[in-house]
Parts: sequence; structure tokens; C-alpha cells
Amino acid sequence: MSMIESSSRPYEECGVFGVWGVPDAAAMTALGLHALQHRGQEAAGIVSYDGETFHQHKGLGLVGEVFDDSRVMATLPGHSAIGHNRYATTGGTHIRNVQPLYADYAFGGMAVAHNGNLTNAGTLRKALVQRGCIFQSATDSEVFVHLIAISLYGTVVERLIDAAKQVKGAYSLVGLTPDNALIGLRDPLGVRPLVLGRLPDYDRDQKNGGWILASETCALDIIGAEYVRDVEPGEMVVINEEGLRSIRPFGTKSQNFCVFEYIYFARPDSILEGEPVYEARKRIGCELARESGVEADVVVPVPDSGVPSAIGYAAESGIPFELGIIRNHYVGRTFIEPTDQIRNLGVKMKHSANRAVLQGKRVILVDDSIVRGTTSRKIVDMVRAAGATEVHMRITSPPTKHPCFYGIDTPEESKLLAATHTLEQMREAIGVDSLAFVSRDGLYRALGDVDAREAGNRYCDACFSGKYPIELVDQEGQLVQ
Amino acid sequence: MSMIESSSRPYEECGVFGVWGVPDAAAMTALGLHALQHRGQEAAGIVSYDGETFHQHKGLGLVGEVFDDSRVMATLPGHSAIGHNRYATTGGTHIRNVQPLYADYAFGGMAVAHNGNLTNAGTLRKALVQRGCIFQSATDSEVFVHLIAISLYGTVVERLIDAAKQVKGAYSLVGLTPDNALIGLRDPLGVRPLVLGRLPDYDRDQKNGGWILASETCALDIIGAEYVRDVEPGEMVVINEEGLRSIRPFGTKSQNFCVFEYIYFARPDSILEGEPVYEARKRIGCELARESGVEADVVVPVPDSGVPSAIGYAAESGIPFELGIIRNHYVGRTFIEPTDQIRNLGVKMKHSANRAVLQGKRVILVDDSIVRGTTSRKIVDMVRAAGATEVHMRITSPPTKHPCFYGIDTPEESKLLAATHTLEQMREAIGVDSLAFVSRDGLYRALGDVDAREAGNRYCDACFSGKYPIELVDQEGQLVQ
Amino acid sequence: MSMIESSSRPYEECGVFGVWGVPDAAAMTALGLHALQHRGQEAAGIVSYDGETFHQHKGLGLVGEVFDDSRVMATLPGHSAIGHNRYATTGGTHIRNVQPLYADYAFGGMAVAHNGNLTNAGTLRKALVQRGCIFQSATDSEVFVHLIAISLYGTVVERLIDAAKQVKGAYSLVGLTPDNALIGLRDPLGVRPLVLGRLPDYDRDQKNGGWILASETCALDIIGAEYVRDVEPGEMVVINEEGLRSIRPFGTKSQNFCVFEYIYFARPDSILEGEPVYEARKRIGCELARESGVEADVVVPVPDSGVPSAIGYAAESGIPFELGIIRNHYVGRTFIEPTDQIRNLGVKMKHSANRAVLQGKRVILVDDSIVRGTTSRKIVDMVRAAGATEVHMRITSPPTKHPCFYGIDTPEESKLLAATHTLEQMREAIGVDSLAFVSRDGLYRALGDVDAREAGNRYCDACFSGKYPIELVDQEGQLVQ
Amino acid sequence: MSMIESSSRPYEECGVFGVWGVPDAAAMTALGLHALQHRGQEAAGIVSYDGETFHQHKGLGLVGEVFDDSRVMATLPGHSAIGHNRYATTGGTHIRNVQPLYADYAFGGMAVAHNGNLTNAGTLRKALVQRGCIFQSATDSEVFVHLIAISLYGTVVERLIDAAKQVKGAYSLVGLTPDNALIGLRDPLGVRPLVLGRLPDYDRDQKNGGWILASETCALDIIGAEYVRDVEPGEMVVINEEGLRSIRPFGTKSQNFCVFEYIYFARPDSILEGEPVYEARKRIGCELARESGVEADVVVPVPDSGVPSAIGYAAESGIPFELGIIRNHYVGRTFIEPTDQIRNLGVKMKHSANRAVLQGKRVILVDDSIVRGTTSRKIVDMVRAAGATEVHMRITSPPTKHPCFYGIDTPEESKLLAATHTLEQMREAIGVDSLAFVSRDGLYRALGDVDAREAGNRYCDACFSGKYPIELVDQEGQLVQ
Repeated sequence: MSMIESSSRPYEECGVFGVWGVPDAAAMTALGLHALQHRGQEAAGIVSYDGETFHQHKGLGLVGEVFDDSRVMATLPGHSAIGHNRYATTGGTHIRNVQPLYADYAFGGMAVAHNGNLTNAGTLRKALVQRGCIFQSATDSEVFVHLIAISLYGTVVERLIDAAKQVKGAYSLVGLTPDNALIGLRDPLGVRPLVLGRLPDYDRDQKNGGWILASETCALDIIGAEYVRDVEPGEMVVINEEGLRSIRPFGTKSQNFCVFEYIYFARPDSILEGEPVYEARKRIGCELARESGVEADVVVPVPDSGVPSAIGYAAESGIPFELGIIRNHYVGRTFIEPTDQIRNLGVKMKHSANRAVLQGKRVILVDDSIVRGTTSRKIVDMVRAAGATEVHMRITSPPTKHPCFYGIDTPEESKLLAATHTLEQMREAIGVDSLAFVSRDGLYRALGDVDAREAGNRYCDACFSGKYPIELVDQEGQLVQ
Repeated sequence: MSMIESSSRPYEECGVFGVWGVPDAAAMTALGLHALQHRGQEAAGIVSYDGETFHQHKGLGLVGEVFDDSRVMATLPGHSAIGHNRYATTGGTHIRNVQPLYADYAFGGMAVAHNGNLTNAGTLRKALVQRGCIFQSATDSEVFVHLIAISLYGTVVERLIDAAKQVKGAYSLVGLTPDNALIGLRDPLGVRPLVLGRLPDYDRDQKNGGWILASETCALDIIGAEYVRDVEPGEMVVINEEGLRSIRPFGTKSQNFCVFEYIYFARPDSILEGEPVYEARKRIGCELARESGVEADVVVPVPDSGVPSAIGYAAESGIPFELGIIRNHYVGRTFIEPTDQIRNLGVKMKHSANRAVLQGKRVILVDDSIVRGTTSRKIVDMVRAAGATEVHMRITSPPTKHPCFYGIDTPEESKLLAATHTLEQMREAIGVDSLAFVSRDGLYRALGDVDAREAGNRYCDACFSGKYPIELVDQEGQLVQ
Repeated sequence: MSMIESSSRPYEECGVFGVWGVPDAAAMTALGLHALQHRGQEAAGIVSYDGETFHQHKGLGLVGEVFDDSRVMATLPGHSAIGHNRYATTGGTHIRNVQPLYADYAFGGMAVAHNGNLTNAGTLRKALVQRGCIFQSATDSEVFVHLIAISLYGTVVERLIDAAKQVKGAYSLVGLTPDNALIGLRDPLGVRPLVLGRLPDYDRDQKNGGWILASETCALDIIGAEYVRDVEPGEMVVINEEGLRSIRPFGTKSQNFCVFEYIYFARPDSILEGEPVYEARKRIGCELARESGVEADVVVPVPDSGVPSAIGYAAESGIPFELGIIRNHYVGRTFIEPTDQIRNLGVKMKHSANRAVLQGKRVILVDDSIVRGTTSRKIVDMVRAAGATEVHMRITSPPTKHPCFYGIDTPEESKLLAATHTLEQMREAIGVDSLAFVSRDGLYRALGDVDAREAGNRYCDACFSGKYPIELVDQEGQLVQ
Repeated sequence: MSMIESSSRPYEECGVFGVWGVPDAAAMTALGLHALQHRGQEAAGIVSYDGETFHQHKGLGLVGEVFDDSRVMATLPGHSAIGHNRYATTGGTHIRNVQPLYADYAFGGMAVAHNGNLTNAGTLRKALVQRGCIFQSATDSEVFVHLIAISLYGTVVERLIDAAKQVKGAYSLVGLTPDNALIGLRDPLGVRPLVLGRLPDYDRDQKNGGWILASETCALDIIGAEYVRDVEPGEMVVINEEGLRSIRPFGTKSQNFCVFEYIYFARPDSILEGEPVYEARKRIGCELARESGVEADVVVPVPDSGVPSAIGYAAESGIPFELGIIRNHYVGRTFIEPTDQIRNLGVKMKHSANRAVLQGKRVILVDDSIVRGTTSRKIVDMVRAAGATEVHMRITSPPTKHPCFYGIDTPEESKLLAATHTLEQMREAIGVDSLAFVSRDGLYRALGDVDAREAGNRYCDACFSGKYPIELVDQEGQLVQ
């Protein structure tokens, strides 16, 4: 009894960016979103604020496609702005789901955008609809929007805190308020990343200006901003003309940072929670080589995320690193649907085998994870067709046995290969001569945590361990039904 | 402190259509909207309901442009549907303002669309925002949407009645409910039109099916439906599988039907409140000829609305009817902005003078109204430039001295020529040899009401008389401020 | 063995416009094309010349859609320009067929556009291809383009005359040359119209400037230009900074002006060969009333072309003129394809019956022609369904028995109702109580030629008489094959 | 005196593909073009032939954007097809320049597409225009089109040979003829690549079918075709239902294959003239390490072309290979034009520094060439800003001192850094601690030719040596003027 398009709630694997107190705030936001493009390629949006009026532009496509025109940028005046890159996993992406969301409140307008997933969004939404709230999008961000609207508190900050205390989940949120503050908020366990940066003096337009919030440090680098620190778990930062104020609405808690950001999601040149992603990946590769060494002729990464780990593996093992698989970077969002005959040709639009490197060789393939196993199988087949005599698969994460409910797009448990297969069954399914995953201990050693049990308190690794640090309210509701 | 695009509330001069219990409900709605295209050319939308799911498609442009594709129609399955043509007078039209509006309620989904203007929309909106409601559009229809959401009543019908009792204004509304009813509702004074029709037996898909609601009878004609009756002032009709039920939430009141629908807005082949529009216009022309006869050589209508009146004027006066002004029907929504030089050429994109008819002639021009007077002046100049020796302007309505707040787009009072000029001053401003308006008595005689004072109880003629039959709540608020 | 899109040669029913020696030449051309929009709605193009470089913009759609942007106009600088409206009758319209055509010659660039049809285009094209010419479009204009290219003469004017002497057919051509001349050329019999106009002093940019060439005078009116005279049959006018020069490459011949321009094609406010179209149509209506009077209650035009004739018929017969059929002017180029069920409803997208005028009445319908008869049948059915007791059809042209090869889109002879049916059979096929066509004598009386036989020398009426004044070279070739 | 858009002749750095005797020929062509996307990203086109009719579709953008729809593919039936990827270096790309070009000849239709540049195109074009040929595009391919049209020979093959004997330049051409042959033709010196492949039996639709022509072997791999051999310099292959026929119109000559294909242009997984590109690049890296070793901490490639060479350099030198520069693969063809302030931030849209790898390190940067030097300078600055203590640039080609006239886009000589600067001046301009290019001897050793002087007979290295193996006819003409 509802509109078809709203029936499936898309995941919220995204990038966020905010800037305060600079000229060309919207243009800087577009650049920051461009650097965060790997976190979401389906849609992008920016809301700017000129102190009197909010302005917005959103569209489907890459940042460079949505903001392709100086005339578009001219419609986004103001010295503060927030922006969002969207990745949607299901069906069509609808423009009404594109963030940031803007709302006219009794106290003025406000814009919010977030990265992450609320685990009680469905439950809250149901209650809000019952109360008479009308939802326009299928995004979790709109739960924040309505909770702010109905809060009995007076100030924007109090209302946002009131809202934040009611939601559960993993999120990093940025917001722009009608009294011209840029707000950053990270969930109590700090699952998703959010960093604070600042432009050098000469690029600010006032003494207290130049502040940046971003999902990753690579968005600071592109505009020459300095990394100040990570926003802390459960911290709210309020940036206005009096400077930056830190609020801790939830009291102190330990952190559970998403370990998959290191393994796959973040850009290799980003530094998350003080740790360079590239170095972390290389060290995971080293650990893998130590734990699961095998005689071979070449170490070949599955591009692009496997490259640093393969370099690490090669360095540790002494086996040469080679680009045995070439990635076609021109694969867009659409392409002709192949006919059956063409499908039978085993066409690979995205990867191709570099025969010169593979033919007659024993190959170690390094990849970041095995989810359904179908992509891995295809790559292995391609490598064998190019003449590899042996194929050994090495995975830079422990087996993915559980779905993520905190913002990474994973299929349900029954579709995860590792959830239903033994290691040997997986090896066979993928068609390799040997298969090994880095151990949980090895992973955390690589991340600098000698004691993996302690790490269990510092990271969220629910997808490997099944230990979900945040209550899965909606999921439990579903089980009961 | 609000988004620029929502700052100005567009008028709601529109056409609505609804159908229940037929195959291809959406296609029929598209046809109905096409017949109502003159009521709004800027956007169109349809929501269909298949008993389980609502489906919608909206777009900017003509009906034939928005619904130009059988694939689009295939996305709108179901045996019931409502649709809306939009006319917006200010700034850019935003897709989020295009009706019908759809909302997910606790009791299920619902779609509504209306023609007309609420006079307390701003006041209600302010109160609803204060309460925590988030508005997404700038339309009056969304006031209904939120009032339904927060109503404490149980059924959809009760909630809609609850909402209707809170709003003031002129509106004809159609709605689709989750228990598969088509609802029609006309404001207590029946200012805006709404007619009820039915398809012949062989075109229905069930015994109780085939019902149509539409702004005008021309939308019944295009699909071969029979005119049943006008929905009555203050009447709500609920059409479902048990047939048609009539509810009168407001008790009995007299009617104040918009007289301007006869003069200008409705299509000449429509029959409103039992009266054919074409015949009404012809009779107004006759009255004008009787009241303000003048010696002349030709009677020339200002196309298109003036044509039937000019025929009536010519018949009554015995002066030949001629097409002295040709209308260019290819004028779209955009054209090059002329340079100053070209502007000086006095270019007319929409009308051209038919010199063969005008040269050396004493011309009676028949038009429906004078609003600002600028268009009239241009037409008169054009007719004189084509060689007319005398130009006499005859207007088929009394002088427009007051703005409409009930759904017709008129400028504020200070910009109405008749509000600030005497008849002689108007004549001079427009540049004619004589100028006459039909009298209020003459107008109502033409409409079959011998006693114009009684007519004041049957029609709304606030734009001529200043007697507003519905309280102007928002306006009064503005005066107080 | 050729590209699908070039296999069918579209008809060339079009409008042309040219201007020399004015600022904003392209903008004026856009306005002129707008006034000529009725001559072709599928595509439009303009080439301007700034004395050094030619600039062009073409597109599919209405003039106002193709030239919808001041930025587009800014790409068309220069004080001279030519433009073209295209009407294509077959298949898809391809942008490469949109005129004007531009070519780089050894002597410089040149642009041409024409209205009409060459009767030896196929024959010439075949010979040119044999010689090694590569055709890019399916237009007759490109035959001119290649003939100019291979001419052995030295000057542009000589080359164009050389080309013109080789082609046969009906055409009115405008061209822009690299030595900055605007050229107008009409075929030896002057079948298609071409008028010469001039802007008043203050709108020219030089003493010799301000010249206009256009298919009809309505394109002069829109920009305030004065009608100077018609370009004469077989006359070439060359307009450059020395003024206007008239050349007569073909010697003197009599004229055969297309009589169908008066009956149907031209705009009613145009004056062709000195005769106002509106007056001509009215007089044809009078002749019809005299020749084929019938007792009836109302005279109803089939809009829009039938209106002036119906006014004439009504005036002559004393039977009241009424708008019994309303035309929906919002019918665009696309609309949903109706399902079978909806088709059965007898939906009319373009016309609707005005029941108030028709019910219980004996109706005289006035239309311009009967081609296949299908449209007439639908209109008659609609009028009867609205309650007409008798329907009498009166046609303002003699029966259309032969196809046009000179630029009017008509089907082949076997599909023309009048070619295969007697008058009584036609009456029955169309479903009317009586049917009458104006006689050929009556038609020419209305056009001011008392002796129709003489008229046969002044007009082309091949579609009625079968007397084709220009040799049908390609057609004869086909018969032989 | 010509259209602005045709004034500059774009370079023809492109990819070509042809297929004969397979179902879904157009879909296979789209896949082949996708694999060749790196050779041209601005436009793509396919012409298919079904034995009776040619069909075409062209568009601006990536292959996946132009052929994004199964409905588009449905318009391209037939068992043979050719396709083209276009790279244009100047101004706007116009659809009329997009290849393949199709022409209707007296002997039937024909389509051609080529990769490369003709050195006498301008001279031939001028003569052809003088003769009366009308050019529609600015491409060299159209010179072939017209030479074929005016040839006095009888068969298509003879006409194409006649044309080929008149042109000079570097080109690899594919064509489709009206008697259903696929033709491949490589210039006499074989400057640009063209390979022959064949689909396995089960993917052909007839005994003689399944032939493929492509610029590189990577286009064979994507559809599972086997590499047969390179088309030889000066060889014409004619593929029809009788099989493959080889013709050598030019007699025997030595080869001058473009060495820059190995260094930069080809995809690393392609095999050109029997030599894997990846291996060639790696060996060049080894040579560089041997020739110009330097103490350092990391070897960092400038992505993407520098990666294999950097792997070779690292392997030879024992210095670790690291991804110190990350490429943003989402950079499209458009992005907001930055304001001055943002430009001052030193924004890099395409590359970012991986600080974790660079900080405090002595860095060897490996890149393929230095053209103007501006990009190199920016990258060096970025690497230093990320904390590198020393930067040593190693280039995998000899200095680029001369422009290419054979199909690679290079600026004129005065803008080539190496043409106007000594090595030391270049080092300083780029801002590195040391700079070295591979020697010409080292380059050819890496390519397996111990004697570089002999190599001068096997490769074209005019951009390094200034020895142009094909006469520069148009250039010399320009010098004379």
C-alpha cells in the first residue's frame, strides 16, 4: 500500500563534506566531494548558506557531472556549505533521496547529510508516521529531520542532540543551521570516519573561518587544508563565528571504528584515526605472506584495492609484484546489455588479463574480500584462461560471514559465501589451487594492535566476528514479526 | 532563512481529473488532462493505484510531453487514477510542486490533487510547521496532506473531512485512498467547478466502475463519458466498489460559482453548472451589443476567448464578424529574448493583424477582460497600424477592480487598470475611440439570472464587486502585521 | 545498398527567410521563421554571415525550441542571414536534412535553403553521384549545392544560374554568398511564393540595407518590414552593398502559382501575388454558398483553415456562423499510443464537438479539401454524435484527384478519395447528407479571374486538373522502369 | 570565409575495429571499442551492414555512453560492422566529424574509419574542393571518401587502392563495402598498429566468418578472439565470404612502427608486432635503472602509464616500488571552472600525493615522457609538498624534441620543453634533484633490437630523432607560403 519506489531502503554508503567561513564554499565542497567520489558515485548534492538563504543543487551522477558548470556554482553563494556523495545499492536512485536534505522549520531552515546507517530507522520512522509526520524520502537522514522538527527543545543544537539520543546506529553527520553554524556529529562508537581540517590563514575569509569536515583526509588534501584531528566518537562539533565548540552529548564510550574502511573502502592516501590506509594495507599483505606463504612466480593484485597489499605481500615473500590484471577505467554506469551469445564469450567489461605476465606462471592473486564469490570466480577463470598454471588466492580480510548494518553494502547472510561454505568448499567454488584469508590476529597486528581481543573493543569487525556493537533494533523487530 | 525556491507561493489555477474502475485508468487520465490542458500548461502528473501499490509519474511541460511514451504509461498500472495539470504564475516551476501529492500515512498511502486556492493556507502552514510538520512543496495541497496526517480520526474519509473543516478557500479536490476509493470534494460554496461523469457500460470493468471526476465536461467528452451531474457545493463523493456515496460535511450553503469560468477560463465546449460556456459567451456578446452599440464596419474578436462573444455581438448588431487578428498557435514557453532593437520593432509573437480585414475600417474589438491594460494597448496599436480608422473596445466582463484569491491568477489591486482609472482614463490608456464593459446586470441576464442581486448569491464576482464570499484569513493577517 | 535513413526522399513543404544589412540578422530571421511556422514544424535552421565567417545553428523542433536561448543567438553574429522551416512527411527527420545547407567551395563558403520540390532531383542526383559527388542529405537543396560546386563558371551568381538552368521543379530559394550577397531565386513558373520586403530606414544599418526575402508577407509583418513586391517567376534578386539587382536567367514565361497556397497552405493574414489570402478564402465560401446552397441551421468551419470560408458561406447564405468544432491547440508531435480499448472510445486529440451548437441542428461543415477522407469521416461522426440532425459538407477546393509533385504533401493517386470515387460514393464514404466541392470556375471567380481557362495559365491546379505545368522527369523515369 | 567549426583540423589519435561474419556484429564492435577506449574518449561510432542496408549510430562521449541501450543496438543489425573511437585535441568535437564516415556511391554505399594522420590531406583536400567536391567533415577520412568517389577504376577494392596510392601518411583503415567485404589497410610503413584476429569456430556464423580487425590485441581479448597476426605494413586484407585475401598495393617496403605506442599509447596488456607492451615497458624501466641509477628510498610511478616501467626500475635497482601518487579515476570531461582563489590552492583533480609513502623519502619518479613540462612540474611540486626530501625524475623515452605528424597529439616544436632546453635547464624547470631520459640505445635494447641504428629502420621515432620517414607534404606547403 505504498509507492513502489520507497519500498526498499537504500544503504547509506556515502561521503560527506562541510566547510565554514570561506569564500567559494560551494566550489570547495564540490572539490571535497570529488576527492570522496569513491565513497558514492550515483548522486551528489550541495547546500550552501549565505547567512540569509539556503541554496541547493542536487543531481544523479558523478560530482563532476552534477556540478559541471560555473552557472550551477553561481546559484550556490555563501561562505558555508555541506555536501554529500551517494551510493545506492538497490533499483533506481531517486532524486528525492539525494542528500543533503533541507527542511523549513519553525526556527528557520536547516540542512543535514550523513554517512552511515541507523539501526532503528524503521522503528522510529513508523512511530513518526503514526504521529503524523510525512516522509518524502527513503533516507535515514529524514529521521533526523523529523526528530529535530518535533523536538521540544529550543535551540537547534539542543534539538539535534535530542534527535541523536533517540537514534541508534553508525553515522557521521554534517549540518548547516539557520544561525550559521556548521555542525559535525559522530555516532557514540565512532564507527564511520569524520575528520576535522582547516585551511591555512590566507585562504580563510575571517579569523575564525576555514574549518572543514570530511569523511576522509584525502578531501582535505585536494584543497590544501591541514588535518587537525578526527572528530571523536560521540563528539559534536559546532563551528560558528565564535570558533569551534566541542560537545559530548553521550558521555564517554569506547570506539568501534569500522575495520573495513582500512581493508577496502577508504582511499589509500587517506589517514584514518591516525593510521595511513596505504601502510595498513601493505602490512596486511605482509602478514598474509607470513601466515600463508606459497611458492609462486608472481604476486598479482586484483585492482584497485588489492594493489598496496600485493606490494606488501611481494616485499615480504620476495616474489615479484606484477600487474597481471588490467582494469578498464572507462566502465560507466551503463552499457549495452549483452546478448546471450556475447555473454557466452565471457566478456569482462572491467578487467582484462595481462597474458604476458600470467602465461605459464604460478600466480598469487591478492584481493580484499570474498562476498558472494561470483566475481572472484570470474577473475580466477580469466587468469587461468591467460595461461596461469597455478592460482593461489590470498584475501586481506578474515572471511566475511555476517552482513553489515552500519553502512557498508553487503548482501544478506545466506548469500555470503563464507557463511555457508567451509574454507575448502570456498576454494573449490572459486576454483583456486589454494585459498587463505588473513587471520583476525594478523589483521590487528597489521593495524598495530598486538592483542586482537583488545582490538575487538577498538574496531567494529561484525562482518567477520558477528559481534555487533550497536543494537540492531529494526532487525530484531523483523525477527519477532 | 528559507530556500529561495519556496519563498513565493504559486497560484493554483489548474485542472483535475479522477477515474475509478476502468482498465487503463492512467491512460484515460492522460486523455482527460489533455482536454483540460487550457487550465494549466506548465506541469502534469498522474498517480494510479492497482489496489496494492500507488504509482506516479510527474513532469514539467504539456500532458503530451510528460506522458509521451507507452513505456511511461506502463509504469502506471491500476484501475483507478487521479491527475493534475498545473499552471504556475511565478518564477520557476519546481517538480516538487507538481501534483498529485502522495504521502505514506500510518493508515497507508494516499494521493490528492486540487484546483483552487486556500485562503488560510499560510496561517495553517505556519501552525503545522510550529507543530513539527515538514513541508516539501509550496502547494496548498500539502496543507491537506499534513492535516490528514495529524487528524485524530480513524478512517481516511473522516480524516479528510476533519482537514476540510479546517481549511478555508475555493477548491475542488480529487483523492485516491488506500482502501481503493476515489474521492471528490468541492468547497462549501462551490467556487471552482467539478463534474461527475460515467463511462458507458461496455467501457467499465465492473458493475460499479466507470466513474469520472473532472474540472470540466470537455474531459468527459474526449473519452466518451456521459455527464451525470456537477458535484454540488460542499459535497464529498466517495466512489468505491459499493458505488457512489455522497456526504455533506458542511451542511447546506448557497453557491458562489466563479463567474470568470464562463467569461474566460473554461473551454467553450464545456457545460458548467448546466450552462454551455459557448452559449453564455455568445449571449454576453449580445448584451454588450445592446448595451453599448456603436456604428462600425467589422466586429473582430481578440482570439481565442473573445470569439464566441464576438459572434454574439455581430449577430445582435448586424455588423459583420471577421477574423481581424490571427493567433500564432506555435508560441511555446520559451523564445529568444529580443535585443532592444528588435523590441523596438514592436514584435508580436502571439498575434498578428489581418490587414485585409482592418484597413480603412471602423473596428469593434471584443475581448474578455482588461487586467493591467498593457496587452490591450499593444493589440489596439497593432490594429491601428494595420489601417483601422476607428477602434472600439468591448469587454465581456465588468471592470476587474479586485484581485482573486480563489484560484485565478490576477495581479495585486494596485496593478489593475480598472482599480486606479476611470472609464475615460482607461479608454485613453488603451488608446481606443470608445470603451465599454458589459454591465453586471447584463452579465447575469446573459447567464440567465434576471436579478443580478440574486446572482450575487449564486456566483462569486469578487473581482468585479469586491464582495469576497470566503474569508481572506492570510490576507487579513498580512494587513495586521 | 544505402543507408536506411536516406532511402525515402522527404517532401519539401517549407518556409524560407533571408535578411541583408541589419544588426541582429539572425534574431530577425528567427522571428521571420516563427511567423512562417505553419509551413514546417519539424526542424529549423539559420546560417548567418559576418562578412568573414559563416555561422549556423540547426535543430529538430519548433523555431522557438531550436532558438530558445540568447546564448544560441550569440553564436550567430552578422548582418545577413538566411533561415528555413522544415516539414518532413516520412519517417524520422534527420538533423543532416535540416536546411540551410552550407558548403565550403573553392571560391569560399555558401549557404542555401529552398521551399519546393525539384522534379528531376533524382535524375540529377544519380548523375552527380556517378560523377563522384558525395551526398550527405536527402534534400533537393543538395542538388543545387553540388551543381554549384562543379559549375565551370567563375562567379557565384553565374554558378547558381548554371545550376538553376539544369534543375526542373517548383522552388523558391534563398542563399548567402562569400562576397556577402543575399540571393533570392524563384522557379521559372513561380509556383511557390517568395516576397520581397524592406525594413524602414531607422532599422537598417546602412543605406542599402534592410532587405528581406520571405515565403509570405506575414513574416514581414512580424518585424515591421514593408512589403515591396513579390519576386517574379524566374527572377533572381542579388542584394549586396550596391543595392538590389534583378536578373532573369530564364527569359520571360507565364506564371503558374500554386492555387493551394490560397486554399489551405498560406496564413490567412498573408498577401500572395497581391491577393489577401483571407479575402480569397471568404470569397470561395461565398461561391460555395451560391453554387451549392442547402437549407440548414448553422455553418460550422473545420478549424483552422475552414474559418474564413465558413464566414463567407454564412454571410452569403444568411445562415448563422458558429464554432461547432473546438480545436485543441496543445496537440504536440507526440502523445501516448492509445490502447485498443481507448482507441475504441473514438478519442479525438485534436478536435472536439461543441454540443451546445450542434445538438438538434442541420449543420453545414466547411472544410478546405478531402484527401484520403478518413479525417473527414471522423469529424462527421463526431458532429453527428453531438446531436446534429443533418450534416452537409462543403469543400473550398475542387476534388483532389492528382498528387502534387511541386512541394505539397499529398499521397499517391490511388489513395486520393476523389481519384477513385464518384461524388455520390464520396458522400457515402464520408457519411454526410450532402457533399459539394467548389467548382473550378467558382474557385477562379473567387480569385478574381472570371475566365478559369485563362486561370489555368496563371495558376498551377494540377492536383485538381491533372495538368502538370512542369515536366515530371523523375516520375517518368519511374514509369519506364 | 568558412564555417568556424571547420577551420581547425583535429588530430586523429583513435581506435578502430571491424568484424565480419558473426551474429551481433555491432555489439561485438561496441565491446571492441570499449577495450580500445584509451585511444579516444570523445566520440564513438559504429556502422553495421546487413547485406542490403548500412546502419549507423554515432555520438559524443564514451563507448558505454553512446551505446548505452539495447534499443540503440537493435538499430544496428547485420553480420559485419566497423567502429571508431575518436580523440580530438582542439575546440569542440562536432558530431559530423565522428567516424566511421559513410557515403552513397554510384556503386553502392561504403563506410570507412581510420586511425592516423595523412600528411598530404590539406593538399589533396584543396585539389578536391577545386574539382567540385563538397567536404562535410574536417577529418582525413573524408579525403579517402572523395578519392574513392572520383576514381576511374571499377571495383571498390581498386578504387580504394587508387585512393591509397594518392595519400601520404600514417594510417590504419577499416572499411565495409557494398558487396559485403570487410577491408583492412595499413599504410606502407606500418606506422599505426592493426591486428587480425578470429573468433573460435563456435562463435562464427559461417565457415569463413569470425574475422576481426582491431588497433590492438586487447580488443581481441575482450571478446575471446584469437590473435592471428598483425596486418603487415602496406598490406590490404579483404575479407568476404570466400575468406581472407591479402593484397600488397605498394610493393615491399621496410616498417617504421610508432615506438611511442610501446612507451605510452597502447594498453599494457596488448601485444604489438609480437611484443607485449607491458614487458617492453618493464624492460625500459630496467634499462633506465641501469643507465641512470641513483640512491633513493622509493620508486614511484606517475600513474597509469609509468607503472610497468617503475616495476622494472624497482626490480633492477632493488629500491622498493610504492604507489606514492594516487590517480582519481572519476575525472570526467568537465568540471567546474575554479575561481582564482581555488586555483591558488593548487588543486589537483586527477592526482593526489600519498603522504605516507613520500614523507621524508628520497623519491624516484618514473614517467613516460616530458612534453611541455607543466604537468611534470605540478607533480613534482605535489610530491615535495607531501614531504619528499629528494625527487629524481626518470623518463622512459628519449627527450621529445619534435612534433608528431603521424597521429599522436603533440604541440608544435616551440612548445616542447626538450626542443628549447638543455637537460640541466629541463631539470631546473621541472624542479627535480636529477633528471634522466632513457637513451635511444637503451630504448631499443629494451625492445629487443641491440642495434639502434637498425631500429631506426624498424621504428618511427621522429619525435625523438627528427627523422620523419613519411614526407610532410602539407607542412612543407606551409613553409613555402
